[in-house]
Amino acid sequence: MPAQTQLGLMNHEELASEHERQSVTYEQLKAANLALDLTRGKPSPEQLDLAAGLLTLPGEDFRDGNGTDCRNYGGLGGLSELRAIFGELLNIPVKNLLAGNNASLEIMHDLVVWALLHGLPDSPRPWSAEPNIRFLCPAPGYDRHFAITESFGIDMISIPMLPDGPDIAEITRLVAADPQIKGMWAVPNYSNPTGAVYSEEIVRTLATMPTAAPDFRLFWDNAYAVHPIAEEFAPSYDVLGWAADAGNANRPFVLASTSKITFAGAGVSFFGSSDENLAWYQMHLGKKSIGPDKLNQLRHLRFFGDAEGVRAHMKKHRDILAPKFALVQQILDDRLGASKIASWTEPKGGYFISLDVLDGTAARSIELAKNAGIALTGAGSAFPYKKDPLDRNIRLAPSFPSLDELEKSMNGVATCVLLAATEKLLRS
Amino acid sequence: MPAQTQLGLMNHEELASEHERQSVTYEQLKAANLALDLTRGKPSPEQLDLAAGLLTLPGEDFRDGNGTDCRNYGGLGGLSELRAIFGELLNIPVKNLLAGNNASLEIMHDLVVWALLHGLPDSPRPWSAEPNIRFLCPAPGYDRHFAITESFGIDMISIPMLPDGPDIAEITRLVAADPQIKGMWAVPNYSNPTGAVYSEEIVRTLATMPTAAPDFRLFWDNAYAVHPIAEEFAPSYDVLGWAADAGNANRPFVLASTSKITFAGAGVSFFGSSDENLAWYQMHLGKKSIGPDKLNQLRHLRFFGDAEGVRAHMKKHRDILAPKFALVQQILDDRLGASKIASWTEPKGGYFISLDVLDGTAARSIELAKNAGIALTGAGSAFPYKKDPLDRNIRLAPSFPSLDELEKSMNGVATCVLLAATEKLLRS
Repeated sequence: MPAQTQLGLMNHEELASEHERQSVTYEQLKAANLALDLTRGKPSPEQLDLAAGLLTLPGEDFRDGNGTDCRNYGGLGGLSELRAIFGELLNIPVKNLLAGNNASLEIMHDLVVWALLHGLPDSPRPWSAEPNIRFLCPAPGYDRHFAITESFGIDMISIPMLPDGPDIAEITRLVAADPQIKGMWAVPNYSNPTGAVYSEEIVRTLATMPTAAPDFRLFWDNAYAVHPIAEEFAPSYDVLGWAADAGNANRPFVLASTSKITFAGAGVSFFGSSDENLAWYQMHLGKKSIGPDKLNQLRHLRFFGDAEGVRAHMKKHRDILAPKFALVQQILDDRLGASKIASWTEPKGGYFISLDVLDGTAARSIELAKNAGIALTGAGSAFPYKKDPLDRNIRLAPSFPSLDELEKSMNGVATCVLLAATEKLLRS
Repeated sequence: MPAQTQLGLMNHEELASEHERQSVTYEQLKAANLALDLTRGKPSPEQLDLAAGLLTLPGEDFRDGNGTDCRNYGGLGGLSELRAIFGELLNIPVKNLLAGNNASLEIMHDLVVWALLHGLPDSPRPWSAEPNIRFLCPAPGYDRHFAITESFGIDMISIPMLPDGPDIAEITRLVAADPQIKGMWAVPNYSNPTGAVYSEEIVRTLATMPTAAPDFRLFWDNAYAVHPIAEEFAPSYDVLGWAADAGNANRPFVLASTSKITFAGAGVSFFGSSDENLAWYQMHLGKKSIGPDKLNQLRHLRFFGDAEGVRAHMKKHRDILAPKFALVQQILDDRLGASKIASWTEPKGGYFISLDVLDGTAARSIELAKNAGIALTGAGSAFPYKKDPLDRNIRLAPSFPSLDELEKSMNGVATCVLLAATEKLLRS
């Protein structure tokens, strides 16, 4: 019986036969003793090699173009020359963009912490003094975002992710009515994990929509701002300008980093926002830091030279990543296409593919894969509270493995998905 | 009239004459149009040059001895080989010492934040749920410590600093009685700004004394652990072990960094504590970070090689710093010794000298110096709430200026101190 047949149209006998066939394939998979990992969006060694030049920088000259001794204390906002380069890429004026240490996640965490303990410039009171606080969470989304809000007891409201961004009708309705909705997580370019690029219309609406909370914030994590796997770069819309024009200057908190441009553990983070937000942020930042690692910023400045240097560098990443994404698409097509039990996204950039399997079988598929030596991101992890309401979503991260490992992994995943589906259908 | 006369013994006429003499000297000082800075404990360019080797490290080999690719994500606790080196210097087992990014101040800030929002492992409730929280603040002390507690509304109680550490009788009395005293700031070696080294007896008492709060913490900022300007290194007492033996394993939070060993803006921080504290810390740290900058840790590992490499490096710092400290002592002796209106510490290490001038004249001395182009740390800044109760303390930071600049600055400071004193005495 061909795997190409739609599973949902099979009778019990056909299903049992298909189940048997997938079980045999699965036993072969287990016998191969694989040890493969598709869990995290980690750059591959080959990608990291692209930034090898950083390993001996800055060299003897430790001063930036302004004459700053980058070895010593100070300069809370980071090097202005580097901020200019990323300001051009992110569409943010230099004065509204700061450069920090190696993790934009730290900045997001601190923003939430200081909003809780001190309140934002336009908060009626510290968020911790509110009876409760809510965040909108487009889902599937980024598990580390949700972990921050969950850890501080902030209620999370799931918003469906659509191909051009989150369900904007639902969002505008909710934020207009509920003053306790204080924030929203967003990955506007090549969203984690679906790869969706927010449309211009959705970005404009998010920047300009009325909100009941005076201190509503967009946590605008542009982690994949310049990370296409297609020919074209996605636009970085002027979310700060549009918000300001609508009287919401303080609304966007824009985050970015070079974690997936240079070195994932040793890059530079960026934070862009209004004058007032940045003054507030630096007032609190000054309590915990005398300044970021300016030598690492100087390394990046020397390595790139200008914004075009970053774009050229990202094309080299694309050349490594695009074949991996294409391979995943091909295997999903070949192995799961005709079964009609699964669907998946076809991102034009970023680090992930979002795979939806037969409802109620994602956790089982992931468990089967684990028992065959293929690590996948935990079931439900792309949803608030790690709860995938339909138990159907699997996040695939194809960047780290080699093409050969990726082929083995994805064929294994397809087998597990089919086996779990036939198990389920036989029981129903 | 000779300046060697004690100001306090002069009659009005003698004082007026001395005031006139210092006024003339002060006018000459202003005419010199100086622009000198004794405000912060910044390493000098010559000291930073000692770590020039770091500027081209790690070189092509980006793996530590365990084979970790230091360019990629992960390893929340930092590189174990580097932790072993600083564990030896700080007298802390490797498993109880983490290595972080460029600022131990960030770790202290985060510890306070998570204690406030989540509570410590042995807290009855989050600190923010307590009616109030108090910290003991040996003073004069480090302004950035006090800024953290002040920013979060934690009450600060001043404790007198004595030559062998803070007033331990006062401390033991307070902590035994008041369960709202949750912490104490401490710089055990070459304390900022007096240079005091806590005695073994005081360290033992702090580690073992009964406290009313079950979650009392010593914020043990060993910022100058290996920073002598004398021949001998100060000991790093086993504060973690002593506390554990007394049933207070979770009491010490030990902090350190290489900010004043390698590069002030681009060093490595360390956090040492009990197993339970570290598990708690990493649970929360994991929400904001996927790991520290391991490449910078690798640079430091390659540069030092072992603990003896660090000690040898610190002797080079000593050779640069010791003549500066000696010059300050000599000028203070020559210019202020006989006047008997001032006293000052003679540190055997660290970055500061604490100068006490005639009561009620510190702010005026600092103002006079500022108007003559000599920047000093703000009046009162070494005290909680920036309030020096006797208005007498001036923190001197001799590390950054050259010997020539330092001589000019200190002669200027002496003039300002004498002028302010004669002004005051003439009015009284």
